[in-house]
Amino acid sequence: MSAVTFRFPFPVAGRPDVSPDLTPHHVDASLISVMDAAAERGDGAFEAFGVIAGALQATDDHLARLAESCALLELPEPDLDQLATICRRIAARATPGVESWLKLVVSRGGMDRSEPHAWAVLSETADFSDARSTGLAVIAGDRGFPASYVARERWMLFGAKTLSYAMNMASLREAKRRGADDMLWTTSDGFLMEAPQSTLVFRRGTTFCSPDPGIGILHGTTQRAVFRWAKQQGYTTEYGRYTRSDLLGADAAWFTSSVRLATPLISLDGDPLTIDHALTDSINAFLLARRD
Amino acid sequence: MSAVTFRFPFPVAGRPDVSPDLTPHHVDASLISVMDAAAERGDGAFEAFGVIAGALQATDDHLARLAESCALLELPEPDLDQLATICRRIAARATPGVESWLKLVVSRGGMDRSEPHAWAVLSETADFSDARSTGLAVIAGDRGFPASYVARERWMLFGAKTLSYAMNMASLREAKRRGADDMLWTTSDGFLMEAPQSTLVFRRGTTFCSPDPGIGILHGTTQRAVFRWAKQQGYTTEYGRYTRSDLLGADAAWFTSSVRLATPLISLDGDPLTIDHALTDSINAFLLARRD
Repeated sequence: MSAVTFRFPFPVAGRPDVSPDLTPHHVDASLISVMDAAAERGDGAFEAFGVIAGALQATDDHLARLAESCALLELPEPDLDQLATICRRIAARATPGVESWLKLVVSRGGMDRSEPHAWAVLSETADFSDARSTGLAVIAGDRGFPASYVARERWMLFGAKTLSYAMNMASLREAKRRGADDMLWTTSDGFLMEAPQSTLVFRRGTTFCSPDPGIGILHGTTQRAVFRWAKQQGYTTEYGRYTRSDLLGADAAWFTSSVRLATPLISLDGDPLTIDHALTDSINAFLLARRD
Repeated sequence: MSAVTFRFPFPVAGRPDVSPDLTPHHVDASLISVMDAAAERGDGAFEAFGVIAGALQATDDHLARLAESCALLELPEPDLDQLATICRRIAARATPGVESWLKLVVSRGGMDRSEPHAWAVLSETADFSDARSTGLAVIAGDRGFPASYVARERWMLFGAKTLSYAMNMASLREAKRRGADDMLWTTSDGFLMEAPQSTLVFRRGTTFCSPDPGIGILHGTTQRAVFRWAKQQGYTTEYGRYTRSDLLGADAAWFTSSVRLATPLISLDGDPLTIDHALTDSINAFLLARRD
């Protein structure tokens, strides 16, 4: 297995079950029209699940966030039980012993947009062991609006994980151009937000911290798992509004995501950050051991 | 003909000609992978050309803008001569006597992103005669950042016409939900920007005005054509930074775009705007008469 695609009708809450056949297609197979809402407008939502030992990770958190994305995008409410069953059936096909991930997508539909549809891609995970040990040099990127803005304009789709990621990809290219590995977005008034594909988590003494999702960012599924682990270990956890100086003074910091997991940050705009390799290894061991 | 798709290699400047066969496909045909950059990330650029009597309209303006989008997206520089030839060959297939439009798309490529590719969709234009005479009720939408922001952050992709249009589509739904037809984006400090799919033009006495593209918006191809027409008619034209009161005091105002053409605005957030039907008809007659 390298990567395979499964297409199926989008299961809508309150409608009959979709009974997908889940025939695998080669990932390069032509399966959608160029006027599909995903390809024409980046108009749809997605989630990326870790898959370990054939088990889908953080299923409930991902699916709850997909439901939020659908609500913000005014797509029909998904039937989460059916989606969980479908995604678990697909995940069970992953090669044993190989880290994998499953990308679940809902598109607003074909050219007539009459009915949303869905697909999932099951892939082997690239080797992130270097990133997880070496860490990431990060630059800050000002998104231009103050923290007070994001609560107001629903149509800006803050908090929805949409397919419109051209700017996310451009942010990563900008980081590379400036000799860094990733970007940390900030509000114009200096509050830390998120990365184009990850959530910021840092440790300050006995507390794990992450930016309040109300600041216009996604609520990270892996961040939530790290918070649960931290509580089990006796740490406290908090969401808040943090600035650059909070991060520079942290005892350890990570970008967390479902596929790359917890990756330590080594610098912000060239200013060094403290790395804690032992803590990073413990977090990633926990994340990789999850079976749901 | 309702709509047909043509796929072809993206012609890159300085490389051998691509010699596309331009076989038409049904618009609903499955032609791309779900992991195509367009479908996975909204990662690509597009232009929509009017097609009248088999002729592609505003060819040079559209293709120059596509080249700017490619530069901002760090896609290879397109061979504009080849693209013009390809698009003109496709436009020549339009049904005579029927308003049509051609959507040209460049995607960053398949799952491996090794090579960008392109497609074009030739469609009959929906009947916009009602909108062109009745006009549009518009609401303002604050994009959250000040006018001073947009010159700085290249990775925000201001000025690139990308496939990441989920927020554009959400803006239109928001307008409908609030009983309006379209949205006019503004900066947080109150300067008028553009609509999700159109450029603002208004007349103030003997001057046609449009927001300075440097405010982080697309430079409208149809707006430029309207400015050329206005000059021929003896009007002056200007780009500037305008506020709500400038628009409310205008003698006529339009959203301009390649397919819907010049559509008069009848209100902004419920405040009435002046309509000039005769001038609107003259502008649209000019726009429809263009053969290049």
